[in-house]
Amino acid sequence: MEGRAGGAPDAGPAAVVLLSGGVDSATCLAIARARGFRTHALTVHYGQRHACEVEAARRVAAHLGAAAHRTLPVDPGLFGGSALTGAAAVPKGRDPRAMAAAIPATYVPARNTVFLALALAWAESLGTGDIFLGVNAVDYSGYPDCRPEYLDAFERMANLALKAAVEGRLTVRLHAPLLRRTKGEIVRMGAELGVDYGLTWSCYDPDPGGRPCRECDSCRLRAQGFAAAGLRDPLFSGGA
Amino acid sequence: MEGRAGGAPDAGPAAVVLLSGGVDSATCLAIARARGFRTHALTVHYGQRHACEVEAARRVAAHLGAAAHRTLPVDPGLFGGSALTGAAAVPKGRDPRAMAAAIPATYVPARNTVFLALALAWAESLGTGDIFLGVNAVDYSGYPDCRPEYLDAFERMANLALKAAVEGRLTVRLHAPLLRRTKGEIVRMGAELGVDYGLTWSCYDPDPGGRPCRECDSCRLRAQGFAAAGLRDPLFSGGA
Repeated sequence: MEGRAGGAPDAGPAAVVLLSGGVDSATCLAIARARGFRTHALTVHYGQRHACEVEAARRVAAHLGAAAHRTLPVDPGLFGGSALTGAAAVPKGRDPRAMAAAIPATYVPARNTVFLALALAWAESLGTGDIFLGVNAVDYSGYPDCRPEYLDAFERMANLALKAAVEGRLTVRLHAPLLRRTKGEIVRMGAELGVDYGLTWSCYDPDPGGRPCRECDSCRLRAQGFAAAGLRDPLFSGGA
Repeated sequence: MEGRAGGAPDAGPAAVVLLSGGVDSATCLAIARARGFRTHALTVHYGQRHACEVEAARRVAAHLGAAAHRTLPVDPGLFGGSALTGAAAVPKGRDPRAMAAAIPATYVPARNTVFLALALAWAESLGTGDIFLGVNAVDYSGYPDCRPEYLDAFERMANLALKAAVEGRLTVRLHAPLLRRTKGEIVRMGAELGVDYGLTWSCYDPDPGGRPCRECDSCRLRAQGFAAAGLRDPLFSGGA
């Protein structure tokens, strides 16, 4: 709980925060805390080959004072052939500005729908409709389930699905505070909120020694973000 | 694979069918087969206390010639306090006509959204957008996520979520062939398609000997369905 941004972990209304352990979701968790929510972080382990993400999520949840952190395994066979679950090669060396031109091999079928559905179940059982997720439609990797029209449609569906919503006891609200932010703005926002990015993990394809490849889309976006923010990435500089 | 309704298991386009192991989902699987789909049955085990459902699903998938059957565990803690996961009492002795008047304690937070999200991931990885589910809005238990407006909203969201949908390679279609059928019609349809209801399971709260309680909503709806269809329930009569 040390070094956390925001208030005491038990204060405020509850919110569920999707937490992958990367830069965006860590920043999103810090924002939810700063907005006064008692955060319940949810990490889904779906056999992604960058499993160090799950470890990073645990560290980040503790660092940012989440009231609870749940890691859920989901059978990776369900998601079939994505580069992130080992069935295809992770693209390397692409220009971040070109990434959004096509949906890449790292797309995972229905990933955000599965994540949000699980978050929704937990949220209703906690008595809240507030769900935060760190999706981004600017410096994003071209995934359709990161677009604002997708989020609007999910929210609408969710308000028809839940007993508590139908009975007027809550309203499902998807909070995507990073949706229209550049990676540079995201890194700057998180740094201001005290996020230690040295605890986060971004690489899709670490080397055998467990170091980031620095060539996959995610590594390149991260590097671009720190450069644009004028900050050094503590993952490489050794500092926080 | 013996005694199945429909064609050969490997024929036709693929569809994912949500299969709980009860009367409705078994009938729905038989309908999907009869419509020429190569069925991929999906059973989610979320810690429901009627775990005999999961065993029933396995038997039904084999009986009805599903090309594949996947059972997925999902952490029951996520769903909090539902009578189906053990946190509250299962209501008994209610009149089926009164069940739809209020959402009962057997409601499970976001259950169909979680089930459909998982089905959606599997469907896209199989290259299909066809998903069958046995929900019913006539003799139903008053669940909001069994209503047509919910299904429409899910379908709309799903067509914005999937890469294959956005790229025009498939369209997500939720097939709910039982939506406007009475329980009696459902039993009659299934019987005509050769469904052996002696393999299915409905009870929310079996006795210690593993026998149906015959008093929970699900048992009473089942009994009402067989009575209306003018058929004997093979679960009690010992025959098929």
